[in-house]
Amino acid sequence: MTYCVGLYLNDGLVMASDSRTNAGVDYISSYSKLHLFQPAPDRYFILLAAGNLATTQEVLNRIRRDLDQAVDPKPSPFQLVPGPTLLNVNYLFEAATYVGQLVVAVQNEHGPALRQAGAAPEASFILGGQIAGQPHGLFLIYPQGNAIAATPETPCLQIGESKYGKPALDHIAHPGLSLADGARLCLVSLVGTARSNLTVGPPFEVALCPRDQLAPAQRLRLDEDSPELAVIRQSWNESLRQAFYALPHFSWEQGAQPPVAPAAIGPS
Amino acid sequence: MTYCVGLYLNDGLVMASDSRTNAGVDYISSYSKLHLFQPAPDRYFILLAAGNLATTQEVLNRIRRDLDQAVDPKPSPFQLVPGPTLLNVNYLFEAATYVGQLVVAVQNEHGPALRQAGAAPEASFILGGQIAGQPHGLFLIYPQGNAIAATPETPCLQIGESKYGKPALDHIAHPGLSLADGARLCLVSLVGTARSNLTVGPPFEVALCPRDQLAPAQRLRLDEDSPELAVIRQSWNESLRQAFYALPHFSWEQGAQPPVAPAAIGPS
Repeated sequence: MTYCVGLYLNDGLVMASDSRTNAGVDYISSYSKLHLFQPAPDRYFILLAAGNLATTQEVLNRIRRDLDQAVDPKPSPFQLVPGPTLLNVNYLFEAATYVGQLVVAVQNEHGPALRQAGAAPEASFILGGQIAGQPHGLFLIYPQGNAIAATPETPCLQIGESKYGKPALDHIAHPGLSLADGARLCLVSLVGTARSNLTVGPPFEVALCPRDQLAPAQRLRLDEDSPELAVIRQSWNESLRQAFYALPHFSWEQGAQPPVAPAAIGPS
Repeated sequence: MTYCVGLYLNDGLVMASDSRTNAGVDYISSYSKLHLFQPAPDRYFILLAAGNLATTQEVLNRIRRDLDQAVDPKPSPFQLVPGPTLLNVNYLFEAATYVGQLVVAVQNEHGPALRQAGAAPEASFILGGQIAGQPHGLFLIYPQGNAIAATPETPCLQIGESKYGKPALDHIAHPGLSLADGARLCLVSLVGTARSNLTVGPPFEVALCPRDQLAPAQRLRLDEDSPELAVIRQSWNESLRQAFYALPHFSWEQGAQPPVAPAAIGPS
């Protein structure tokens, strides 16, 4: 499985992913799922990938080939039709449309054989980035090729094993978070998910992308034994335990605060 | 959807559920999913129910009919075969086996018509309780009729929309929790789930069942506007926010603690 999360903040973007991939519990490996494209100084794109690994890798390879061919066309045994690339799109939503078209094309190519073998060809992506003169943006690209954008009301987008890590986001995320706070929030969400689901695990990767800077300012890769990850994990676990034991007591307990119109029906 | 959770603690059992039921987002209603059976002074059983509402209701009705027929047999238009009831089982695992048999029977009866309509007949249960002379116990009964018991190593069992609420359990649950702490933990897990998924919601029901007491000592029903739920929710939310802002800063931030072998790769 995989868990990726992107935050659309006033100050820019934070994009984060785990690195665990599994085909069954007896074949677990590590692949980066955070992919940076900087085809020209006026633009950058980050893609987070979840789903069928062969699909996501082929989509990424086609993106790279399209960029190569745009700059230095080579004869190809495949029928390559000139079209959009990350270099010639003018808007971020066009980049999302382009990636969506690639996702659908790759799935269509391999889907029949995969489905016959009981496997799913689907993949989904989160695309973040900025093109000079345009605002920064964040899109979730569905396996069907369509996409939705993050907004100030819904600043978090998730793909993969998203449920375990959602309550932390729902509690804390808002567009006014700093990029560093956003990175910590993503790590908290990733750490909680990895604790509850073996198929999500470190290294955790995080990119912090300040608005209008047209490139990530920081890129973290936190391994299982990273001290920086250890202190965040330890602080969060300890605070959660303290928060739990600080919860107000029920009215019938010793040491309870004065009862606040208890809702207990009492002994049944 | 539904979310139910049971805790198997040294001091006894805590069993909790939400009360929201939905058939599509435009048909949301409220049903209790926590069902207490006390057929004799030497035993009690609590069933938490998730899945197809018609299936769970028919299973519960058959349990009640079996108890009625055991005490005061009446002629029935249905072919009722004398067999196990919650009154004549000698072990909690026999009660789980009995409920599992009912689940499978009801699903088999209605499954074909439901599947033809694109609906699922499946239901699952958590069974907790105690029979005099036996230890208290907690079982998860699968739609296939088999069951697993909670153990000190795995004291939490969940059914329904279980992922959102699992990290809180994984962080905090251990068999040494008091029943009141267990009840608070279940509420925290329920509150977080309800915040992230609209199909899970109050009233939240919680039963606290001390070991060897053979009956619940407390039974709570916390409505949306219950002050007791409000103070728990507010305390938890506030503590989570504090925990988040108390996380150690990254080494490159102002106000950072002395760096602890930072894992940052730096500007990419």
